[in-house]
Amino acid sequence: MIKAGIIGATGYAGAELVRILLGHREVELCWLGSRSYMHQKYASVYQNMRKLVDSECLDDRMDELVKQADVIFTATPQGFLASVLKEEHLQQAKIIDLSADYRLKDVNVYEQWYEIVHQSPQFLSEAVYGLCELYRDQIRGARLVANPGCYTTCSILTAYPLVKEGLIDPDTLVIDAKSGTSGAGRGAKTDNLFCEVNENMKAYGVTTHRHTPEIEQQLSDAAGHEIKISFTPHLVPMNRGILVTQYASLIKKADGSLPSEEELRAAYEKYYGQEKFIRLLDPNVYPQTKWVEGSNYTDINFKIDMRTGRVILMGALDNLVKGAAGQAVQNMNLLFGFPESEGLELVPMFP
Amino acid sequence: MIKAGIIGATGYAGAELVRILLGHREVELCWLGSRSYMHQKYASVYQNMRKLVDSECLDDRMDELVKQADVIFTATPQGFLASVLKEEHLQQAKIIDLSADYRLKDVNVYEQWYEIVHQSPQFLSEAVYGLCELYRDQIRGARLVANPGCYTTCSILTAYPLVKEGLIDPDTLVIDAKSGTSGAGRGAKTDNLFCEVNENMKAYGVTTHRHTPEIEQQLSDAAGHEIKISFTPHLVPMNRGILVTQYASLIKKADGSLPSEEELRAAYEKYYGQEKFIRLLDPNVYPQTKWVEGSNYTDINFKIDMRTGRVILMGALDNLVKGAAGQAVQNMNLLFGFPESEGLELVPMFP
Amino acid sequence: MIKAGIIGATGYAGAELVRILLGHREVELCWLGSRSYMHQKYASVYQNMRKLVDSECLDDRMDELVKQADVIFTATPQGFLASVLKEEHLQQAKIIDLSADYRLKDVNVYEQWYEIVHQSPQFLSEAVYGLCELYRDQIRGARLVANPGCYTTCSILTAYPLVKEGLIDPDTLVIDAKSGTSGAGRGAKTDNLFCEVNENMKAYGVTTHRHTPEIEQQLSDAAGHEIKISFTPHLVPMNRGILVTQYASLIKKADGSLPSEEELRAAYEKYYGQEKFIRLLDPNVYPQTKWVEGSNYTDINFKIDMRTGRVILMGALDNLVKGAAGQAVQNMNLLFGFPESEGLELVPMFP
Amino acid sequence: MIKAGIIGATGYAGAELVRILLGHREVELCWLGSRSYMHQKYASVYQNMRKLVDSECLDDRMDELVKQADVIFTATPQGFLASVLKEEHLQQAKIIDLSADYRLKDVNVYEQWYEIVHQSPQFLSEAVYGLCELYRDQIRGARLVANPGCYTTCSILTAYPLVKEGLIDPDTLVIDAKSGTSGAGRGAKTDNLFCEVNENMKAYGVTTHRHTPEIEQQLSDAAGHEIKISFTPHLVPMNRGILVTQYASLIKKADGSLPSEEELRAAYEKYYGQEKFIRLLDPNVYPQTKWVEGSNYTDINFKIDMRTGRVILMGALDNLVKGAAGQAVQNMNLLFGFPESEGLELVPMFP
Repeated sequence: MIKAGIIGATGYAGAELVRILLGHREVELCWLGSRSYMHQKYASVYQNMRKLVDSECLDDRMDELVKQADVIFTATPQGFLASVLKEEHLQQAKIIDLSADYRLKDVNVYEQWYEIVHQSPQFLSEAVYGLCELYRDQIRGARLVANPGCYTTCSILTAYPLVKEGLIDPDTLVIDAKSGTSGAGRGAKTDNLFCEVNENMKAYGVTTHRHTPEIEQQLSDAAGHEIKISFTPHLVPMNRGILVTQYASLIKKADGSLPSEEELRAAYEKYYGQEKFIRLLDPNVYPQTKWVEGSNYTDINFKIDMRTGRVILMGALDNLVKGAAGQAVQNMNLLFGFPESEGLELVPMFP
Repeated sequence: MIKAGIIGATGYAGAELVRILLGHREVELCWLGSRSYMHQKYASVYQNMRKLVDSECLDDRMDELVKQADVIFTATPQGFLASVLKEEHLQQAKIIDLSADYRLKDVNVYEQWYEIVHQSPQFLSEAVYGLCELYRDQIRGARLVANPGCYTTCSILTAYPLVKEGLIDPDTLVIDAKSGTSGAGRGAKTDNLFCEVNENMKAYGVTTHRHTPEIEQQLSDAAGHEIKISFTPHLVPMNRGILVTQYASLIKKADGSLPSEEELRAAYEKYYGQEKFIRLLDPNVYPQTKWVEGSNYTDINFKIDMRTGRVILMGALDNLVKGAAGQAVQNMNLLFGFPESEGLELVPMFP
Repeated sequence: MIKAGIIGATGYAGAELVRILLGHREVELCWLGSRSYMHQKYASVYQNMRKLVDSECLDDRMDELVKQADVIFTATPQGFLASVLKEEHLQQAKIIDLSADYRLKDVNVYEQWYEIVHQSPQFLSEAVYGLCELYRDQIRGARLVANPGCYTTCSILTAYPLVKEGLIDPDTLVIDAKSGTSGAGRGAKTDNLFCEVNENMKAYGVTTHRHTPEIEQQLSDAAGHEIKISFTPHLVPMNRGILVTQYASLIKKADGSLPSEEELRAAYEKYYGQEKFIRLLDPNVYPQTKWVEGSNYTDINFKIDMRTGRVILMGALDNLVKGAAGQAVQNMNLLFGFPESEGLELVPMFP
Repeated sequence: MIKAGIIGATGYAGAELVRILLGHREVELCWLGSRSYMHQKYASVYQNMRKLVDSECLDDRMDELVKQADVIFTATPQGFLASVLKEEHLQQAKIIDLSADYRLKDVNVYEQWYEIVHQSPQFLSEAVYGLCELYRDQIRGARLVANPGCYTTCSILTAYPLVKEGLIDPDTLVIDAKSGTSGAGRGAKTDNLFCEVNENMKAYGVTTHRHTPEIEQQLSDAAGHEIKISFTPHLVPMNRGILVTQYASLIKKADGSLPSEEELRAAYEKYYGQEKFIRLLDPNVYPQTKWVEGSNYTDINFKIDMRTGRVILMGALDNLVKGAAGQAVQNMNLLFGFPESEGLELVPMFP
């Protein structure tokens, strides 16, 4: 039994961490940090937690928290953890950061896309990118895990095997992503009001979304050379769920023919055949966000278009689970040697 | 470890039974009956169940099923179980019926409201009404449990303590109920298409909804005399959730004054103070369906209106969980002596 | 051709006024007042107005506005108009107030329910309550029209004929109202975020909603004695639409029998038979909010419940049209002698 | 004043035709054909039309209809019009077909993608493709207009100027399209039930959607050579609206530089500067489907991505208006010499 603390516990990702950790047999919640709701009952902020969580919201004093907790989740705005993290903290507790502060290895890329100065770049090289299916071994020994973004988890997992195996040309990769509105957070903004989002759909952050360099960093590694992609996120009138649709040209084989459906399927099987939380769907069955809602699954499929020589890739996950809190718990399980799926045996809810 | 079979496993209530039973430590699913999808993979009908359920849909032969299963859930249209149930079945397996066939004690009332002839009224007196919080002891020894309706569970639990304690005049009781669309089932009807339900709200079954006599039967028992209520259901553009708003005149005390908030609260505490799945909210905090989504909770509160001498009662539950599959599993737990909350420690999902 | 100004033009009701007035043949918009967006292009706030509205948002200087406009619509927070209105204004322009400032005849009732001090009670007696179907003649000669609330318009129109004709006992009247979220306005509040409202339903303002005394004032007039009602509003996950469900005991006739469906229908026909914007539906067809969306209609029907001696009344309208901007334009048409339906021949949009 | 008949008047596109034509000053509706609801009051099928449409649904006898109507709209399944159309019909009435029967010039392409045999290919060469902004002059003299598909209207209008001016490489064009659910029609299918669509998103028809060759036909004409595109439609939980996001490589200029934002903007201005129903948004303002809801507008914008050398194009329209009924009325206006925007001055409804 370990003790876990959360900073940013009243955001949607923080609340999802609470939901998941309540069902985890090896973890006790010891600290629910929330500056906005300090000293208020957590269950008064999230009434769904009534009878389940009795404690009050605390502040975000990292110095104190590291003494009490074995693991700390920071579900905080960009820049927060970077501005407070000290070596002593990492000596006392494991930290899983749900923000972007330690995801990008190149501090210049971070500062350029996020438009803030990184306050503790000295930890960038140590931080492990917490995409469990790809970096499982490194995560196990880490002190600081950079939990991937929601769009990035879905985008990378969907494209990775084909990029890695050289089946698609990554420089032609276009990622059109659609997200439920919980991804926009719980801040009170006019743009996120019910009447503005409902019965509506739009693209946003076109050419400038901050998850772009994160996807590029990982797929560049897979490709073996630096690539640039097009990534366009869209806001969808639903609470949860990310769907990515990706387009890339297939690389012709030596005989000039395109790779077959079987070859692509084999690539996915090679990397994900043993993965509990990745489901490669049957041919012609395409991912739906509802099929993964509330669970830690990523559903993936693809379709070859012989007419254009492209392949269309599709991936779906719950942005608050595999895209945030679920993956963070999966990382925690790896850090502490628990079964990787402990607390994550969440059956998708339909409807 | 017991074996459970479901008839009607591909309806929404049946699918929710599967979802819940997958997390139950004492149950193994042995039979997923669905005439509509016979011989198809269950996970091809509900793709959310991929990697979780590997079996195919079977038919609904009760004679065979009772040999294989210790408990049978029938999530079937009205009249189905009544038309096939035989004494031998009850000697071989416990049956929990999610239809209305054995809920009403008076066969005439059943036939009048449901407009079908009851094929096996001989079991009516034996069947136990499976509202766990009220009939826990009788349920434990039953062979046949009539699982309550979704509207009725919410309506009865919300009003029961005040009726039982004589604090409200049950003859003035008006129940205005609102339900998510999963309550309408998975049948392909124009009225339930997305574009007909979305951005829309309506009343239906006005003065004729079949849950009316079921509520009246239970509240008449509580009141000690036969009562008639007004019950009006409404369809709401959301997947899950029932909210009931009830209006009744408070009964004046001997001194002519109205009962106080404390007295009403005490009545709720008396009946529900120890109940795990009922949450009486704090004063001025009113139930929201989202706070119970995916869980077995019923959230309840009330507000006295001194101006009119009425009290407004509010209750909320997830129609597929406490209103159907969750309560059915709670009944199963009682029947087999498992902890009553086994498999039902479902944390409400928000958002 | 008259000139119209709007104060509060960037709220949802203000924007709906713009939408409707753009299609009005006798009106030119001369002033779009919005303190929040002053000096910004109106079409940059409401991009749906691109190519349709070219002007910038102005401030809310009433002294200047009355010189430019023949009619002023104030779609402003409670208390605004009461705090600025002067006799000179009314001498220069007609004013239609969409706030509650002049709806309640008794200043004490206003101050009690709204918890603000009324700054200009001297205009209360002069102001005409702008429920066009009931006060058409008075409106024609008015200088100051108090445009009714959304819930109140729907509630009063639905109950009025039966109260007026003495067919129901108004002291038993219970109004359970459901509203789309645009009724909550465009303010950036956490409670109105998409993820908080979507897939959710709740009651609010239980026993305290400010539309209660407004309904009581009108129905008391109709009943001929002062009545108190129960009124409970609910928030529904849809943009537009109000549905009210009302419950009341029928008054027995001299022979002890209940009034018949025909008698009730005749009462509605008596008051609304010639009304363009009220539609009494066929027996057993119940109002749906979608059927009136975007239009100025109020749809009404009822159902007698012989078992309980009650009648259930149902009414639906679009809260932004007949419940706000549409009725305001209908009032303007009466004030200026235009055809009452000019600009309001809006066909409901389905789906 | 002309007379118009509709075959398929009870589908969503047919109902939208009724809604729009009710506001058209030069048209009288004389025939509402609907086999499914024959002899029923039209307003009993679409209760929103109560008091507005008094007639009953008729059958679909073209021979009789051409005698009564000056113009006939066929909002019917693929293959219907092709199977009944005769030369005599075209001699008696203008026909605007909302199905795909006469959109594709090459009968083989039609039969391959639609998998039905074309029953009257002799009219293919005569039929004019009714994309008003591109084929205005040909439409004016036509007898038979093939009204474009919803996805195609949006896709073509968004890409056309850049393809025509040689600013993008059309062979790199990827179109990711998202549609509200009314595009799926009013047929009672499980897949389109509220609970299956709500809180869900999916791709469908991947590589096989029938609008693909229609887009290719038009953009090939614009490009001056035959092109193949990738087109992927998605289903979104909203009633109305299509959003297309398009990706294409910019063609470098002689000096090796990419075309500038100004050059792209100039291309749009060249083709659409005078178009009433196309709105090119300001830089960095991206189309939202809600901004065009209920109107005949298409909103368009683009963003250059210097990093990848691509441009991202975005377009939005209401699939039932500009994507179906609105454009059909626009075509009718051209055919009969009415002002092109008559009946189409529909202000987008927000929220």
